Amino acid sequence: MDHDATRIGELEVPLPDRTDARLVFIGRIRTPFKTRDDCPRQGSPDGPICRIEIDEPYRPGLKGLEKYERIEVLYWLHLARRDLVQQSPKADGRATGVFALRSPLRPNPIGSALVTVIAVEPDAVLVRGLDCLDGTPLIDIKPDRCGYSPPAALRPTSQ
Amino acid sequence: MDHDATRIGELEVPLPDRTDARLVFIGRIRTPFKTRDDCPRQGSPDGPICRIEIDEPYRPGLKGLEKYERIEVLYWLHLARRDLVQQSPKADGRATGVFALRSPLRPNPIGSALVTVIAVEPDAVLVRGLDCLDGTPLIDIKPDRCGYSPPAALRPTSQ
Repeated sequence: MDHDATRIGELEVPLPDRTDARLVFIGRIRTPFKTRDDCPRQGSPDGPICRIEIDEPYRPGLKGLEKYERIEVLYWLHLARRDLVQQSPKADGRATGVFALRSPLRPNPIGSALVTVIAVEPDAVLVRGLDCLDGTPLIDIKPDRCGYSPPAALRPTSQ
Repeated sequence: MDHDATRIGELEVPLPDRTDARLVFIGRIRTPFKTRDDCPRQGSPDGPICRIEIDEPYRPGLKGLEKYERIEVLYWLHLARRDLVQQSPKADGRATGVFALRSPLRPNPIGSALVTVIAVEPDAVLVRGLDCLDGTPLIDIKPDRCGYSPPAALRPTSQ
């Protein structure tokens, strides 16, 4: 399957050559999916266990993560084209806007997944529910917003 | 409230001076929240209507978005420190890892929100459920993964 061809009806908008913000990769994701054709279209709660490896300086950031069953993972879809603003996933000439698709091809190719935590290790998190390629760069991990109450000091205002 | 002070027990890890990937802002978010103290701790489904403005080249990407009631919004927390790997939200000396918090202060300060679509206009999306500052740069919009079925051509393999 050619993941990089433009199909009939698709709209290309070249990505501007500027950097509005810079990302630093904080680890990488190990999955059994070695090619883009191997990746499922969406992660499944009974999918294979994948290992999210955290680079050394960020490992203290895992403290407390074991309290959560579900986490949100953000990652960089490093192989994806960034210039297809309308896409035709069925290759049938009908195009849909990129913001109405969860396609990996996006102006800012960030994937987000909600996954189930199997184990938290000192340098990694084992999860089920990912659909990304082996070696995908990691951007962030957060607790799932459901089941999360923001801890906070009292505010000076009545907010 | 001082949003930039380091509190007792917090762990700083300076962000490396490298760019692993570059983001291009594709619009901005208009909210009634003019300062960080104005922002609610989490967005609420009955919160105020906010306007997500899309820059000109990306507006065709909205085609089809009106089919979805709930969307995921990714945005750049442009005022946030990036070096606090353990944080003490209650300022009580007890620190939690950044990956176990939904704090805006993160190595890659990307906010994610699930919001309700009120209207899709040619150059903007009106939504409820955001908690970010007025003027926050927009990174991406996707349909909520619940209620989304990936459209696709048949694959050559049995996947």
